[in-house]
Amino acid sequence: MRYCYINGLYKNKTDAQVSIEDRGFNFADGVYEVMSFLNSNLINFHKHISRLQKSLDSLKISMPFRNIRSLELIIKRLMHINKLKNGFLYLQITRGAAKRNHIFPKLIKPNIIIFSFSLRNDEKIYKKGVKICLSNDIRWGRCDIKSISLLPNVLEKQKAFEQGFFESWQIKNNLITEGATSNAFIVNKQNEIQTHPSNNFILGGVTRDTTIEIAKSNNFKIKEKAFSIDELFNSKEAFLTSTTAKILPVVRINEKKVNNGKPGEITETLINKYNEFLKFQN
Amino acid sequence: MRYCYINGLYKNKTDAQVSIEDRGFNFADGVYEVMSFLNSNLINFHKHISRLQKSLDSLKISMPFRNIRSLELIIKRLMHINKLKNGFLYLQITRGAAKRNHIFPKLIKPNIIIFSFSLRNDEKIYKKGVKICLSNDIRWGRCDIKSISLLPNVLEKQKAFEQGFFESWQIKNNLITEGATSNAFIVNKQNEIQTHPSNNFILGGVTRDTTIEIAKSNNFKIKEKAFSIDELFNSKEAFLTSTTAKILPVVRINEKKVNNGKPGEITETLINKYNEFLKFQN
Repeated sequence: MRYCYINGLYKNKTDAQVSIEDRGFNFADGVYEVMSFLNSNLINFHKHISRLQKSLDSLKISMPFRNIRSLELIIKRLMHINKLKNGFLYLQITRGAAKRNHIFPKLIKPNIIIFSFSLRNDEKIYKKGVKICLSNDIRWGRCDIKSISLLPNVLEKQKAFEQGFFESWQIKNNLITEGATSNAFIVNKQNEIQTHPSNNFILGGVTRDTTIEIAKSNNFKIKEKAFSIDELFNSKEAFLTSTTAKILPVVRINEKKVNNGKPGEITETLINKYNEFLKFQN
Repeated sequence: MRYCYINGLYKNKTDAQVSIEDRGFNFADGVYEVMSFLNSNLINFHKHISRLQKSLDSLKISMPFRNIRSLELIIKRLMHINKLKNGFLYLQITRGAAKRNHIFPKLIKPNIIIFSFSLRNDEKIYKKGVKICLSNDIRWGRCDIKSISLLPNVLEKQKAFEQGFFESWQIKNNLITEGATSNAFIVNKQNEIQTHPSNNFILGGVTRDTTIEIAKSNNFKIKEKAFSIDELFNSKEAFLTSTTAKILPVVRINEKKVNNGKPGEITETLINKYNEFLKFQN
């Protein structure tokens, strides 16, 4: 996507730069959101903005847009300039640039970056499912903040990728927290859809929340309680969620099959219902 | 300091910028070093470069300089252009810029940034000591990597600053790990100089290591074993170390005095010996 938005201007992406003293660049002192849009409609826009507000609050950065409407207009204009109707949007806000010092500078103006991208998920993986690995969750204690302090996630995702896995589900105190870039779900022995509760150990994903809402409104039982490695290996189905991956069946953990190694029935129902939800947003 | 080095060029700092797709900016996918120089001599240069190499190795980024000598020439030239003989040097290396994706891109060129800064530590604080607070260490499990994924440190340092403390010492499993931007030492009841061992829970500071060497060569006993909150409150002396702060006496923890609330004798000896060490490098 050729153009991006940077601090009030629409620029060719190759010309969009920030100072080497930007605190995002020096300290990971910033937050971000990834949203999807379909037929020029932003999916779950208000949920993303409400999470963005929470992340900014945690860092004590003021929301740099006058209101939601003004941000929406910026985004719509960017999509228009890029002649893009379907795809994803990346929004990053850092505290801004200042002489390097851990302590927050006074009088600093946030840097705002927005760019769009398209991503073709191979449709086959929704039919076949993906395989994941497990790893120790060594991330910090505030994973609920959607910050750009993402080095642990990057290193974990890379390790999984090098070993041929789509994702790595992370373990803390013998319980699965979440994936390096997605939330983790199982269908347990009791046919409940189970996932880690939304607290400081995971990022409360927008697609996670939407999946839970869709499941509830379709009369599935939801259990927001962390599951153990044993429960995972004895689960009937497993899947992951994220804005870019949507709902994706997990059919193998390391080399072990989940159930019979095929996407489960409940997972497939949720995928269909989620696709209906996306269509309905348009 | 007016000029900086960026990817082979010496630029006015205000003109030095990186792409909004730099992975340091998006993912905190980079490392850094802070070094001091005195009379144009780099202090502990080889120790800093060896730690830089370790950090780069952990991230699987290749060292982007032909050899130590070529990096030294770059730095010397920068100091010359900036007409600076005493001060500090900040060096940051990120994986480089690429379309945003957690997985490492192929064929990517690291971004290298070097700038200098001067910092006047109020000499009084070395005579009077500083007060610190305590906090929970919620950082990730690889604090030994000197990465730019520093948001936890930034938030902790800011909280301490707002409450009038110079630094925050962090607690994991009832043991002090290190400060938000420095290493933590006590002189214990047995007159041993005690500090957390160098492992994945702390950054093995160059000034920390130098302090230990100086202490040993002056016949002080060193105990590299984490100390508890109780041991801290019952210590005879306390101090912190970092490249910018050097060796700095800690005289209060929250509002409680360490010993009699004055810098201890052993601390003062170490400060003098450290200053001698710095002079000797010239």
